[in-house]
Amino acid sequence: MHLRCVDCGERHPPALLYACARCGGVLEVAGESGLAAPADPSLRDSMWRDAARLGVLEARHIVSMGEGQTPMRRAPRLEAALPGFRGEIWLKDETRNPSGSFKDRLVSAGLSKALELGARGVVCASSGNAGASTAAYAARAGVPAVIVVPAHTPAGKVTQIAAHGAVLLLVEGHYSRSYDLARGLAERHGFANLTTTFLNPWAVDALKLAGLEIMERLGGVAPDAVLVPTGSGPLVKGVAQGLGLAGAAARLVAVQAAGCAPIVRAFEAGEAAVTAWDMPRTIASGISDPLIGYERDGTYTLRLVRNSGGLAVAVEDDALRRAMRDLARLEGVYAEPTGASPVAALRQMLAAGQLAPEARVVCMITGHGFKDGAAFAEMPARTHRVADPEDLAAVARLCDHALAEKD
Amino acid sequence: MHLRCVDCGERHPPALLYACARCGGVLEVAGESGLAAPADPSLRDSMWRDAARLGVLEARHIVSMGEGQTPMRRAPRLEAALPGFRGEIWLKDETRNPSGSFKDRLVSAGLSKALELGARGVVCASSGNAGASTAAYAARAGVPAVIVVPAHTPAGKVTQIAAHGAVLLLVEGHYSRSYDLARGLAERHGFANLTTTFLNPWAVDALKLAGLEIMERLGGVAPDAVLVPTGSGPLVKGVAQGLGLAGAAARLVAVQAAGCAPIVRAFEAGEAAVTAWDMPRTIASGISDPLIGYERDGTYTLRLVRNSGGLAVAVEDDALRRAMRDLARLEGVYAEPTGASPVAALRQMLAAGQLAPEARVVCMITGHGFKDGAAFAEMPARTHRVADPEDLAAVARLCDHALAEKD
Ligand SMILES: [Zn+2]
Ligand SMILES: [Zn+2]
Repeated sequence: MHLRCVDCGERHPPALLYACARCGGVLEVAGESGLAAPADPSLRDSMWRDAARLGVLEARHIVSMGEGQTPMRRAPRLEAALPGFRGEIWLKDETRNPSGSFKDRLVSAGLSKALELGARGVVCASSGNAGASTAAYAARAGVPAVIVVPAHTPAGKVTQIAAHGAVLLLVEGHYSRSYDLARGLAERHGFANLTTTFLNPWAVDALKLAGLEIMERLGGVAPDAVLVPTGSGPLVKGVAQGLGLAGAAARLVAVQAAGCAPIVRAFEAGEAAVTAWDMPRTIASGISDPLIGYERDGTYTLRLVRNSGGLAVAVEDDALRRAMRDLARLEGVYAEPTGASPVAALRQMLAAGQLAPEARVVCMITGHGFKDGAAFAEMPARTHRVADPEDLAAVARLCDHALAEKD
Repeated sequence: MHLRCVDCGERHPPALLYACARCGGVLEVAGESGLAAPADPSLRDSMWRDAARLGVLEARHIVSMGEGQTPMRRAPRLEAALPGFRGEIWLKDETRNPSGSFKDRLVSAGLSKALELGARGVVCASSGNAGASTAAYAARAGVPAVIVVPAHTPAGKVTQIAAHGAVLLLVEGHYSRSYDLARGLAERHGFANLTTTFLNPWAVDALKLAGLEIMERLGGVAPDAVLVPTGSGPLVKGVAQGLGLAGAAARLVAVQAAGCAPIVRAFEAGEAAVTAWDMPRTIASGISDPLIGYERDGTYTLRLVRNSGGLAVAVEDDALRRAMRDLARLEGVYAEPTGASPVAALRQMLAAGQLAPEARVVCMITGHGFKDGAAFAEMPARTHRVADPEDLAAVARLCDHALAEKD
């Protein structure tokens, strides 16, 4: 097992390294631990069922709360709601991870390996979800955590991070400023950096299991496309890698918010390299990442998307709201704006003829609606106060009226 | 398969019945469907893996989002934090259900059976979690839902219910007023009642699988005690029944909030019957149930607790806050006040000598912290604003200071 640069191919020893020492490129884990299936039965409910494929060498270093192995199911009412569509939509429900987002996969793997490599604490720059995950797993492991987030991070995420006892730093401005600060703090404190861009290869490595799980649920038949909410893009890589491990491939669709879409911009312009985005502005906090200073992450993701025959798609905030509503009202799935973004992209791609009407697609629903209740609280709802619950006839009339409302 | 009265033993046909026609007692499902394991692979990730043990006769009626089969794991740092304790604490993590609470088990089973029996809509009175669950599952099934909750229900739960498009009625006063209104509306609209007291036997029946899952995770060796947050008490029954199906038993501990503890009051007074509670007052909204008008539910639970050699325990709001903090900061588990109540009871029982220091106990962590963020938002935290992230030395000093804080 070693670390390998995805740009120049240089090999590095299996350490806490965050970039290629030769060219500054993104590192990935090459090889697998071959660790025997853990004896602890609780770990069998988690992605560590496949511990042999991950980077941790000794089971005692594993920090787990039952992450991964998330449900995946058809979305029949959503399928019926998309004009002309006659394919299959599968929802990979990552909201079901311990802290409510797919970030738990990265953090469980990254923290476990960091402890194995001797780290005494962890730092994480985050738009909220990775920070909440890091705070939770650090609490479980009993190690100190410093979480750095933009000051405008949704309240639901801020409260969650603070609850786990982490030191939480709120930084003015866009996400890349938090990213820079976390790098500095990790170095100065001698803590591991669990920031979930492509920075930590041990963390990113775990995402391949999501791709394997998709193949398992589909009985070994690859989907036509996988739609992935995309900031810098580790989940795009994980899905591609996991499908590849199962001998399969699919078109990868990187979904970004129109208000912060550096990868889409480069894709559409036919550029080889991604450039940073100046002023992110979107309700999808989870993918609001301008990539300032780590544009190479985006370029790597762009390459993966192109190699798959896929595409990069930008969706407007209104389309995100509609997708949140579709998921909640048609499929019972409560997703934050970022988590609903694949559904927004799906509608848009169908309308634009970018997807065959009979396609079989997987949507990665990456984060829970609880994370950002405010985004839902402002939507129209059928909520009524009942002054006199004893007057059953009047309440029943109110209900009849509300049930008949078209919305 | 039929319905049986737990009080007088009378048998009733398998219908949408909510009380014994002879004596008004609580009904339970007797028998099992024997349904073959569903072919749909998505159902294998859910409690419907054991469809044979539930009441639905045809797989096409099943409405599932991957409920049940929740993780259960040791809590080593919590064990170490309890003075003198040298046993085992296991957390059964029901926060991991689709809508964030164990109510999804009841609602998935209850709604599926209601549809099989011809229901065209559903009603649910709730303190929030069962309502959110009913709204989500009704959305997935495409049937109308009317949810009735107290007006003071936490905002996180209200937003979640509304998001799924249900008609949501906010009723002034304690939970029992919502309960009454829901009964009236269900009758008038001809909708099934999914209220998760003991009202709907098809819903309650599914909770036995939680007991079976506990036994499976413990390798067939019964725990000494199972601590269960308790409003009216269906989960107490489910755990007892599931352990029984595995040929095991444990002391059942019904945990109530000191501000609404009708079952504890009867238990401590040595009464045979539970009487209603006048003025509920607690931060544990999920178990704030005064039982006004359905005191028999509490009496049934009291009987189950006594038969198990267990007890009923009341915990103060401050103990709940401490337990929330313990779970979040020691084990990475973010639970709402009700969900943390077993941990509060555990500390109290150990101090009072009501539990052997070497006991092996299971805590049912019933609901997610997201559900009631306000309860966490007011706790002390280590959160700091960073005005100048470029001044790394100053931020590092701030971190050093914050990390050293005793809290
Ligand atoms: Zn390189
Ligand atoms: Zn009876």
